[in-house]
Amino acid sequence: MPTFRLTIAYDGTAFVGWQRQAEGTSIQGLLETAIGDLDGRDVMVVGSSRTDAGVHALGQAASVTLARTIDGPTLVQAVNVRLPPAVRVLEASEVPASFNARFDAKAKTYRYRILNDEVVPPFDQPYVWHVPSPRLDVEAMAEAARVFEGRHDFSAFQAAGSSTVTTTRVVFSATVIEEPSPWGGARLVVFEIRGDGFLRHMVRTMAGTLVEVGRGARPPAWTAEVLESRDRGKAGRNVPPSGLVLVGVEYEPT
Amino acid sequence: MPTFRLTIAYDGTAFVGWQRQAEGTSIQGLLETAIGDLDGRDVMVVGSSRTDAGVHALGQAASVTLARTIDGPTLVQAVNVRLPPAVRVLEASEVPASFNARFDAKAKTYRYRILNDEVVPPFDQPYVWHVPSPRLDVEAMAEAARVFEGRHDFSAFQAAGSSTVTTTRVVFSATVIEEPSPWGGARLVVFEIRGDGFLRHMVRTMAGTLVEVGRGARPPAWTAEVLESRDRGKAGRNVPPSGLVLVGVEYEPT
Repeated sequence: MPTFRLTIAYDGTAFVGWQRQAEGTSIQGLLETAIGDLDGRDVMVVGSSRTDAGVHALGQAASVTLARTIDGPTLVQAVNVRLPPAVRVLEASEVPASFNARFDAKAKTYRYRILNDEVVPPFDQPYVWHVPSPRLDVEAMAEAARVFEGRHDFSAFQAAGSSTVTTTRVVFSATVIEEPSPWGGARLVVFEIRGDGFLRHMVRTMAGTLVEVGRGARPPAWTAEVLESRDRGKAGRNVPPSGLVLVGVEYEPT
Repeated sequence: MPTFRLTIAYDGTAFVGWQRQAEGTSIQGLLETAIGDLDGRDVMVVGSSRTDAGVHALGQAASVTLARTIDGPTLVQAVNVRLPPAVRVLEASEVPASFNARFDAKAKTYRYRILNDEVVPPFDQPYVWHVPSPRLDVEAMAEAARVFEGRHDFSAFQAAGSSTVTTTRVVFSATVIEEPSPWGGARLVVFEIRGDGFLRHMVRTMAGTLVEVGRGARPPAWTAEVLESRDRGKAGRNVPPSGLVLVGVEYEPT
């Protein structure tokens, strides 16, 4: 009964999100079907993060226990042939049976990509949020993002109606940089955040808040006010899922 | 009656190619419909290159003459709202009425991208040809590609059944490099070629020939033999269109 940690990349465009739903295709559902087919029985795949509909991943992590004996590289190949090309298992490493991708995660990194240029190059289009104008002030956004670093109650950035045991999280780093798009050099503004966990819609609401600063509607110090208010009504809007990518998940070495 | 040079990017996956066909959606057809709609009459859009079905472009060039007076940036915006997101006009510059994107092109650059790694990251999948193994010998491929440089009769790399006035072309540079994919660092082997013009299937057949060298089936010097033979039967196969991108087209300054 080997247990594996899977590293998974997906283009979330066509899916209802990570988690199995009553209707629509989920990443978890695709993986459970593929691995169940391979293992000859129903399996449960536990993801580190329940990414929303339309959100992408370069390095989602998940755990699964199989009945059959199999090595990591063989598992990767056998699962990938049973998945659509938009979902790929990049790696499978055997871990102790006690490993749980959700509860054992120590840090996660998300990236929110804003295409801040007139025209969206077609190859970038599924993986950005398009803000054609004004030209966003990256310095001001970077200054505003630094406010998120540290241990805080992030209630102001949580989806309305969420219930979680605690709304306190630790953000290890929060940066905003400008870079050319990999395709044709359009201007990308990239918000990257690494923390011990994230509330529902937290990264997208932070991105929406930073864009208010970037377009000059608010000063950088406004982010601190929003954070301290713990009031969801004060933050920016929850911006589109297409711009969000789960970059990676970190665990203690096993 | 202003004439414009358009710079166009497209994801060719869903299209029958640049040129209008009896059936299916072409890039030229989409542009002619969009610009004709804007101009209130039928227009003809002349492309620099008739890219095949499934081939992509970062910088295709085209010329078009309009009845109405309009400036470049307004034309870009007005055309893009009439196109699917997979096709974008990046730029429109007014040029002399005599300008013809096909006959005035001085140089074109194509890139052929081979994903030479076990797993294809989902974001790269539409824009590569997947060669999972063996690990291609990039040095040998680069040496083989240099043979293409200069003025040569490229009959050996032309699609069977083509008829062109001359099969002689000048290749200014032909390189092969290795680079990480922009998404997650899978190994990409990239063949880039700049020349004054290309025969039908020439770049893809060259790529297929270079891969024979890269996987060790042939020595680098074999490329010279193939070139000198002028025999299509000697070259490698015409590899998939998904890996090919028209990077840019050059003209004399106007």
